[in-house]
Amino acid sequence: MKSDIDRLMFERELDALLVIGDSDGNSVMNYLTGGGHLEGALIVKKRNEAAVLYHGSMERDTAAETGLQLIDRGVAHNRYQLIQEHDGDHLAADQAYMIRVLQEQQVSGRIGIYGQYDAGEAWALLNGLQTQAPQSGLDIELVGEYDDSLFTIAQETKDSDELAELQEAGRLTCLVVGEVQAFIQKHKTQEEKVIQEDGSPLTIGHVKRFMRERLFFYGLDDHNATIFSQGRDAGVPHNRGNEEMPLRLGQAIIFDIFPQRESGYYHDMTRTWCLGYAPPEVESAWEQTKEVFDRAMEMFKVGMPCRDLQLMTCDYYEKLGHPTVLNKPGIQEGYVHSLGHGIGLNIHEDPRLTHAKNYDNKLQPGHVITVEPGLYYPDKGFGVRIEDAVALDENGDLIWLTDYPYDLVIPMNG
Amino acid sequence: MKSDIDRLMFERELDALLVIGDSDGNSVMNYLTGGGHLEGALIVKKRNEAAVLYHGSMERDTAAETGLQLIDRGVAHNRYQLIQEHDGDHLAADQAYMIRVLQEQQVSGRIGIYGQYDAGEAWALLNGLQTQAPQSGLDIELVGEYDDSLFTIAQETKDSDELAELQEAGRLTCLVVGEVQAFIQKHKTQEEKVIQEDGSPLTIGHVKRFMRERLFFYGLDDHNATIFSQGRDAGVPHNRGNEEMPLRLGQAIIFDIFPQRESGYYHDMTRTWCLGYAPPEVESAWEQTKEVFDRAMEMFKVGMPCRDLQLMTCDYYEKLGHPTVLNKPGIQEGYVHSLGHGIGLNIHEDPRLTHAKNYDNKLQPGHVITVEPGLYYPDKGFGVRIEDAVALDENGDLIWLTDYPYDLVIPMNG
Repeated sequence: MKSDIDRLMFERELDALLVIGDSDGNSVMNYLTGGGHLEGALIVKKRNEAAVLYHGSMERDTAAETGLQLIDRGVAHNRYQLIQEHDGDHLAADQAYMIRVLQEQQVSGRIGIYGQYDAGEAWALLNGLQTQAPQSGLDIELVGEYDDSLFTIAQETKDSDELAELQEAGRLTCLVVGEVQAFIQKHKTQEEKVIQEDGSPLTIGHVKRFMRERLFFYGLDDHNATIFSQGRDAGVPHNRGNEEMPLRLGQAIIFDIFPQRESGYYHDMTRTWCLGYAPPEVESAWEQTKEVFDRAMEMFKVGMPCRDLQLMTCDYYEKLGHPTVLNKPGIQEGYVHSLGHGIGLNIHEDPRLTHAKNYDNKLQPGHVITVEPGLYYPDKGFGVRIEDAVALDENGDLIWLTDYPYDLVIPMNG
Repeated sequence: MKSDIDRLMFERELDALLVIGDSDGNSVMNYLTGGGHLEGALIVKKRNEAAVLYHGSMERDTAAETGLQLIDRGVAHNRYQLIQEHDGDHLAADQAYMIRVLQEQQVSGRIGIYGQYDAGEAWALLNGLQTQAPQSGLDIELVGEYDDSLFTIAQETKDSDELAELQEAGRLTCLVVGEVQAFIQKHKTQEEKVIQEDGSPLTIGHVKRFMRERLFFYGLDDHNATIFSQGRDAGVPHNRGNEEMPLRLGQAIIFDIFPQRESGYYHDMTRTWCLGYAPPEVESAWEQTKEVFDRAMEMFKVGMPCRDLQLMTCDYYEKLGHPTVLNKPGIQEGYVHSLGHGIGLNIHEDPRLTHAKNYDNKLQPGHVITVEPGLYYPDKGFGVRIEDAVALDENGDLIWLTDYPYDLVIPMNG
């Protein structure tokens, strides 16, 4: 959590952090600022010192809400003037800006670099900065962390404020799922289809439009990425569903919804629905999946190795005759993914419930994780998945963030 | 436009392009794929050859919709297996993957790197790739472009398909603005406030909630970033407005709305409204701003230097006694920004209507640009801005993407 940052800097021998990039989709920037919209901002933080936010003049009100120490770069290091001084060369101007910031903050030593940026621009900017630093009197070493970065580790455990945000995201998402279910159920059916008042079929597009309006009403945004896939499409895990497709009775529908609150925090849950009735092979796959879900939740305790949850799941499915990623990497039928992932300001973050080699993460207080077993048989025309998000609070107690019935069969009125 | 990419590669002596990162918020990736949701995808394109998309197995249906040549990396270069081979070292595994991709595609020479990525991870990944390439038999030079990058230039001019997307974004945004205006106007007023049926004041939060539902209805997403700021707040250009604040008669309201369609294309427009009546100093600033807006639009022709539009605007405002960024960089009162920017898959892209040194871009067919003069006086309690998005089509004819009345005063019924 945030209070770990200085300790993590010490462990990694980092003397300072530099976070760059616009705030949109920039979870590290949003983690430190609280999520206000900031363009071209920059954060410098020295170990055991407060973070300093350099921001544009036009965003000075937004910057003031972050609670960080502020420097208005429009006043202090005006970009037009820097471009002027560097004869229109934006790269030279931006490098000069970063050098001035590091000088002003008296930064030296190893500097960790973070934040979403164009990869090629980052490469150009950081190469130039590292090269020019000595002649500017800066004794610095830029450090690019990969995978288990400081922020990956810090963000992996949530403090009580973050947990409250995530709980509310779960509560609101479940409200929307309930409204979507009721919306579908209020329709009549005819010849295996769900029918609107004018007699035309209700499609996945209609359901998604209704759902998105309800999401917006509750301050949630799904970035148009919700999965509502039916039949064969549900057999391909990230197929988002064909909007033209009419809803049909007796088909497996995977409804995987992972909206984001205005604060930036996500929820993530999945239900598999069959309208009216479920075919036996879907019911069987669903019951096996619910069983392994329950077994995983029984194991979900502080100290449990994340990989053991995935290994148990693969083992369980394989004993029932399903191929899994454990023994057949790259497989497209059976159990084809990992059991879950952390959620927070990123929809996918650590920890991962994965069997990847040397991954030795264990469940710990502050973890907020999805558990999502599933089976996929596109050639047989179905897929099933069940997913809840759960947390371990500061005492290690299990908190269920998703509170919604698991029912496979959604009764239709006729 | 897209058809310029091979020519731009030739001019920059680039033998190949490499685009990395998740698709969310990754405009270069979305430019080439058409906007489907893809996680951890990678695109390689050699000069004068078709682009090849490496995608995850779970996204194979999404990948198939891009029309690109496809390689399922889950099958061909499985990440679990690569991590296994590299003893759990994700950086080594991902570098090995990129080397295998470059070998498989027989890439050599100068490779431009693009796509949104964590800056520190990009630095680590690309440094390692460049270092390891020779021992893998790869004769490559990674190139990080800055500012006028190949994609910045290509995306700056829109083809007819893109222009149609942008026109529809404008049409739908204007529908929402009209509904928001009607929503406000249907309320009664009392003691300079706008009142709801229960007698409580209508707030900016109420307006934003109504607006966002209507945006969602039309398939638009404002990422919660719409500016609806009143009074003093309107005097700070990127203040998004205080949701608790009741709407008041006779206050300047800046309504700057820039939603994104599901296809990824943005619109961007601004109106300044005064409910009921406008105070003389707001009316005067607004009329001056409308006048300079009209003058800019008269100059808006193919061949016009972008900087001349900004210089005319500064000159006009300064003659009327307003300070401007031209002579007072870093100023926070008067005319404090540039006149406009391109829009497309990015909300801010080239060309820029700026006076930045050596910026010699001229208006050309395919440009889609906002024109947005404004005056800001937070200490006097107001700001005004008028913004339309306009295009020059392939014949150089002016096309108005924003079609909405400019009226400052919004009559209230009483």
